[in-house]
Amino acid sequence: MLKIDMHTHIIPKHLPNWTERFGYGNFIDLVHRQDGKADMMQGGKFFRTIDENCWDEKVRMQEYDDFSTQVQVVCTIPVLFSYWAKAKDTLALSEFLNDHIADLVQRYPKHYIGLGTVPMQDPALAVQELERIKKIGLVGIQIGSNINDENLSEQKFFPIFEACERLGLAIMIHPWQMMGFDQMKKYWLPWLVGMPAETSRAACSLIFGGVLERLPNLRVCLSHAGGSFLPTLGRIEHGFNCRPDLVAIDNPTNPREYVGKFWVDCITHDIDLLKYILKLQGSERVCLGTDYPFPLGDLEIGKFIEESDLSLSVIEDIFCNATLAWLNIDKQLFLDELN
Amino acid sequence: MLKIDMHTHIIPKHLPNWTERFGYGNFIDLVHRQDGKADMMQGGKFFRTIDENCWDEKVRMQEYDDFSTQVQVVCTIPVLFSYWAKAKDTLALSEFLNDHIADLVQRYPKHYIGLGTVPMQDPALAVQELERIKKIGLVGIQIGSNINDENLSEQKFFPIFEACERLGLAIMIHPWQMMGFDQMKKYWLPWLVGMPAETSRAACSLIFGGVLERLPNLRVCLSHAGGSFLPTLGRIEHGFNCRPDLVAIDNPTNPREYVGKFWVDCITHDIDLLKYILKLQGSERVCLGTDYPFPLGDLEIGKFIEESDLSLSVIEDIFCNATLAWLNIDKQLFLDELN
Repeated sequence: MLKIDMHTHIIPKHLPNWTERFGYGNFIDLVHRQDGKADMMQGGKFFRTIDENCWDEKVRMQEYDDFSTQVQVVCTIPVLFSYWAKAKDTLALSEFLNDHIADLVQRYPKHYIGLGTVPMQDPALAVQELERIKKIGLVGIQIGSNINDENLSEQKFFPIFEACERLGLAIMIHPWQMMGFDQMKKYWLPWLVGMPAETSRAACSLIFGGVLERLPNLRVCLSHAGGSFLPTLGRIEHGFNCRPDLVAIDNPTNPREYVGKFWVDCITHDIDLLKYILKLQGSERVCLGTDYPFPLGDLEIGKFIEESDLSLSVIEDIFCNATLAWLNIDKQLFLDELN
Repeated sequence: MLKIDMHTHIIPKHLPNWTERFGYGNFIDLVHRQDGKADMMQGGKFFRTIDENCWDEKVRMQEYDDFSTQVQVVCTIPVLFSYWAKAKDTLALSEFLNDHIADLVQRYPKHYIGLGTVPMQDPALAVQELERIKKIGLVGIQIGSNINDENLSEQKFFPIFEACERLGLAIMIHPWQMMGFDQMKKYWLPWLVGMPAETSRAACSLIFGGVLERLPNLRVCLSHAGGSFLPTLGRIEHGFNCRPDLVAIDNPTNPREYVGKFWVDCITHDIDLLKYILKLQGSERVCLGTDYPFPLGDLEIGKFIEESDLSLSVIEDIFCNATLAWLNIDKQLFLDELN
């Protein structure tokens, strides 16, 4: 069976020293160590240690082969979005990252599919880079759940979504810059509590702000099975119904109407929650995703699904059909490789 | 069938002018209007309009009778917690609110059960008021999901939990002062996105901070079916397993071990999510709750459960047995009334 993991992160092995080049800020830098790992530094401050599977395309393919997975959809690591920087600098950084992924995809078209990043803080520049992204062979973009703490419902971002629909580029929403970060320092809570809330914040913003209503052909996928959005849909819908004066101010359509019109990945680490999600979304709107190569990801690449009692056709939808539909890619391209 | 709604809010019809009496701050005041409603003011600024069912015990009983519900567990409205104030002033305010509820319970012992509030910001004063709460006939307290943005895992709060266990007082955790509030002004998102996250924050703090481990007889109930906690349990457990250096630093026990040891209410507005919750918690740990009389609540008092295909014994657990166990109250007290 064709397996495509649509939620994986990659970084070039070597990054320019952006902080030095631009002369300000806390851009991400990589310091490679003797033991083969690298320390991600944020303006000189330690952020996280990463392994070679974060940048080495061959190591990655080998690790995927261990789980019979042929294709990886790659995108950058959210901390590299750099929406906080001067827009022209974020553009330069985005171009660098996008070119890196485009080159990878060109060299391994049967194994890698690419999503880009754009300077969301400057919609005009973002649209300019979207046009270029399309030309260099990427099929969509990954964006943050908020843009410098502004919500995706803000009118200023609409031209970006409009351009994605026009260009046929898919969008993956990834949680980042988590709400409550400074008040939840212990126990990794920004990742365990803040991230699911961020994805719900993004989903609610796209729905209540009317983005999905105005752009019915925009193909959006929410990380981590939609975070807390789908499990709290009853509450969200009830809020919409009981206080339309607060909730339905920009879009009169019930939020439940959009369920199954966007995509989510399957990163639940829990088969019962996945079944709840499948019942809402349908199997054609739930994609195999892992968050590889990070530890909070499903690094056995859907094993909990293979071991479940879900039918083969549902599993095949999750493992490839949903993602192919989200990205509007022909299955045949990969089947040749499989046989 | 006995029906007890364990999650309802009440306020005295008349409040002292705390802001004037204490000479500072933005305490809650009530301004009664010609139309029978009242405006809740926060230090002179409009906060919310409430109806007479927020304070009138007889109107409340009548509205509950419409849904064949005999008993209401009442507690204050979180905005009245006033943890931000000087502790002695919060104590005075808490005493006033607790006395009001104690009086109500004394007059209608078959229809009202009471939970108090305490000055959480001063654990010694809080414990002092807990002792008094016990004496005046309340059976537990309601507390916020955070205390002035400090988490319930903070060691300073432990004596309060310890006193609750010792006194046999139950605890209800209610979300409030929601993370991300200032960044989510539109679409009621602090209530729809922030509140479920707050409850997960509180649950994670009680578990990872070792409170539930050290106090196995503490009876805790989480609002809104646990918010996003139970639906993201797979992620939370995976985080615990993959990064114990970040998550398991104060308690080595897997968070899943606590499922079914605390209680949650059933406010999901969605029968499928409720079934997911029931599978995890067991019906003896899922209580009928509504958030009455507020619009975001389940103001048909469990009708979606009565209309479901859940078995009568599961429904009876939800409607009364779970709450009686949480509050350690004898069912017989209410059965007399029922017959």
